[in-house]
Amino acid sequence: MRSVEEHRAAVLALVGPTPAQAVSVGAALGRVLAADVTAAVDLPGFDNSAMDGYAVRAADLAGAHESAPVVLPVDGDVAAGDTARHVLATGRTMRIMTGAPLPDGCDAVVPVERSDGGADRAALTLEPEVGRHVRRRGEDVRAGDVVLPAGTLVGPGHVALAAAANVPEVTVHRRPRVTVVSTGDELVPVGSSLEHGQIVDSNHLMLRALVEAAGAEVAAGVHLRDDADAVRAFLEAPDGDPDLVITTGGVSMGAYDTVKEVLSEVGGVEFVKVAMRPGMPQGCGTVAGSGVAVVTLPGNPVSSFVSFHVFVLPALRAMAGLDPAVDGGFEAVAGEGWSTVPEKLEATRVVEEDGVVRRSGGQGSHMLGALAEATALALVPAGTEHVEAGASVHCVPLLGHDRTRG
Amino acid sequence: MRSVEEHRAAVLALVGPTPAQAVSVGAALGRVLAADVTAAVDLPGFDNSAMDGYAVRAADLAGAHESAPVVLPVDGDVAAGDTARHVLATGRTMRIMTGAPLPDGCDAVVPVERSDGGADRAALTLEPEVGRHVRRRGEDVRAGDVVLPAGTLVGPGHVALAAAANVPEVTVHRRPRVTVVSTGDELVPVGSSLEHGQIVDSNHLMLRALVEAAGAEVAAGVHLRDDADAVRAFLEAPDGDPDLVITTGGVSMGAYDTVKEVLSEVGGVEFVKVAMRPGMPQGCGTVAGSGVAVVTLPGNPVSSFVSFHVFVLPALRAMAGLDPAVDGGFEAVAGEGWSTVPEKLEATRVVEEDGVVRRSGGQGSHMLGALAEATALALVPAGTEHVEAGASVHCVPLLGHDRTRG
Repeated sequence: MRSVEEHRAAVLALVGPTPAQAVSVGAALGRVLAADVTAAVDLPGFDNSAMDGYAVRAADLAGAHESAPVVLPVDGDVAAGDTARHVLATGRTMRIMTGAPLPDGCDAVVPVERSDGGADRAALTLEPEVGRHVRRRGEDVRAGDVVLPAGTLVGPGHVALAAAANVPEVTVHRRPRVTVVSTGDELVPVGSSLEHGQIVDSNHLMLRALVEAAGAEVAAGVHLRDDADAVRAFLEAPDGDPDLVITTGGVSMGAYDTVKEVLSEVGGVEFVKVAMRPGMPQGCGTVAGSGVAVVTLPGNPVSSFVSFHVFVLPALRAMAGLDPAVDGGFEAVAGEGWSTVPEKLEATRVVEEDGVVRRSGGQGSHMLGALAEATALALVPAGTEHVEAGASVHCVPLLGHDRTRG
Repeated sequence: MRSVEEHRAAVLALVGPTPAQAVSVGAALGRVLAADVTAAVDLPGFDNSAMDGYAVRAADLAGAHESAPVVLPVDGDVAAGDTARHVLATGRTMRIMTGAPLPDGCDAVVPVERSDGGADRAALTLEPEVGRHVRRRGEDVRAGDVVLPAGTLVGPGHVALAAAANVPEVTVHRRPRVTVVSTGDELVPVGSSLEHGQIVDSNHLMLRALVEAAGAEVAAGVHLRDDADAVRAFLEAPDGDPDLVITTGGVSMGAYDTVKEVLSEVGGVEFVKVAMRPGMPQGCGTVAGSGVAVVTLPGNPVSSFVSFHVFVLPALRAMAGLDPAVDGGFEAVAGEGWSTVPEKLEATRVVEEDGVVRRSGGQGSHMLGALAEATALALVPAGTEHVEAGASVHCVPLLGHDRTRG
């Protein structure tokens, strides 16, 4: 039986980072940088005021304090966006706004709160040190600095920094394109009237949602019946020009496991048992002749869901330009004990709250009710028979459970 | 000075959940349910096999074991998707596939691994108890059960469950629509040639990214110069038919704070100092006459970014149908000590790793380089002068830092 690590490595070997493309910085959210971003300008771009107040020469305010204001004539205003180059004469002041460029000669700013707010003459009650409330050109970033390294998953703060550094376009990896294939004669579209023996093709919609939640793109999605010719034709030339095809169903030990039958005959795809529960029957490879990269997941919805997180998600991360090994994993405390199969890694569906996990109801591989409650997978390694209450367990978060949105 | 909690409450008072709309279950990812989802069918929908193997009557296999197989004639196959109603005669068996409906009379399944795999006659080496490897109709979910309550943030597992329960459409809240307004004469579009005193309008792109990362929709986005008439006209009739308008800039103590000047004159919007660093100058209200809900953020990029997380994000959560108070907050250990202002809540930008946080470089409100490295905000309450190394600090994650994508 293949270990989880071995099968994950086999899936990863099928894929590589997608090609780079230039996008406007505003469109880069959620993408991964394929090249460093280098600042085009200093940040700040010029010495400027950190406060609304008065631009001064610090030496002019020797001895100023609350009980002994120094009064200076005001030579007008410098607003943010004022592109003139002002000069501050000795013994005088100018009103200055937050972010406005310092006039030449100015070496400090007195906040408006330490003044009488005068427009013609201002009484100032602070003796500032040189540089007080001044933001120096380039103190945050220098033109030419790498401000964001290749491999960065772009968030709002990165957009802000690249934009501020006057970089209108950045280079990112194309979103991975995934074609999703559900298989099985028993499957009918949601909303159908179900005959005896039929079930809704929930895997199809679930896999689409998983692909989208992983930041990838659904290139195409189909349901195929257990018809060897149709399955072969599709997998040799899948719709959507995908980087990767994911199938569910038809990979087990049964007499009607069409995906396994067809791809075993065509060649290039290996079908294996992986030491994991749920999700033992797995397959992956490149379809002989056509070279299509395919990962074949089992058809039980829970097995398919777990297998996606354990095997497909690392591949999607690698394709997107991320480190596939960085999975957001965390250690949690088992809030209860539970038995597991010692010969396999067991991916227990758990609900995590404040660092404590408990199982989310029935753990059967057909138990969608319990799956939907789960927020993480506890990955209990092979060799464990029982997770003791209070023990530390390694968990990975589930796609779509966004902490920032609660 | 207003407390952070008071101002957050004032912002929340401006908004309510957006209207409900029906969407196909496949399009519900990332949306929040506005109504309970009720199962239309039992799950499983019929008694079925949990394994590939042989459908049997348990009583027919008394005494079967590895050294004493019981041989039964095979009356054909039941595949998944077989809609016929088969009957299993006493003393006989049928091959059965995972997920296939049990024939009437069958009360257990012997896995193929405990057989010789025979197609005409099968030698079975297991004496199963009644119900072995059988999934009972309705054991996961009953038709009529509420499978997903209103308020659920829909993830891939929820899509799977609703689909499996044969619910083609679900009712969700409309995505909140937000119009983003940056203000200031000093701002120019990214990629411009910068004159002395000009800076790139990074706030505009940052706020768009924050709105998107929060799962809301950018209804429109504009930059306005410090022109009172233009600002008034826009805020009284904003583009994009938004639920909420967010502005940045022009709300401080300066002489050119146009947003504050204009809205103070029009009325309906309160401008306050909030006991928070960065982000003291804030405003919110409904514009008199037009009733437009507006939150006015300060213009410093870092102040604006922090203010979005602390004040706007809870409002977007509430609008989306989520609990605004559930913010993904977590306790972390300070990996270093740092000083804070005792009279304000200080939102320190931190990098979190394995539950330990350290400051992400310079904390000035113009320091975008450091902001871009941060993964969380440590919210150090008013009354604290110094965070001690090793102390516990409450943190909230930043938008766009997706654990599942590393």
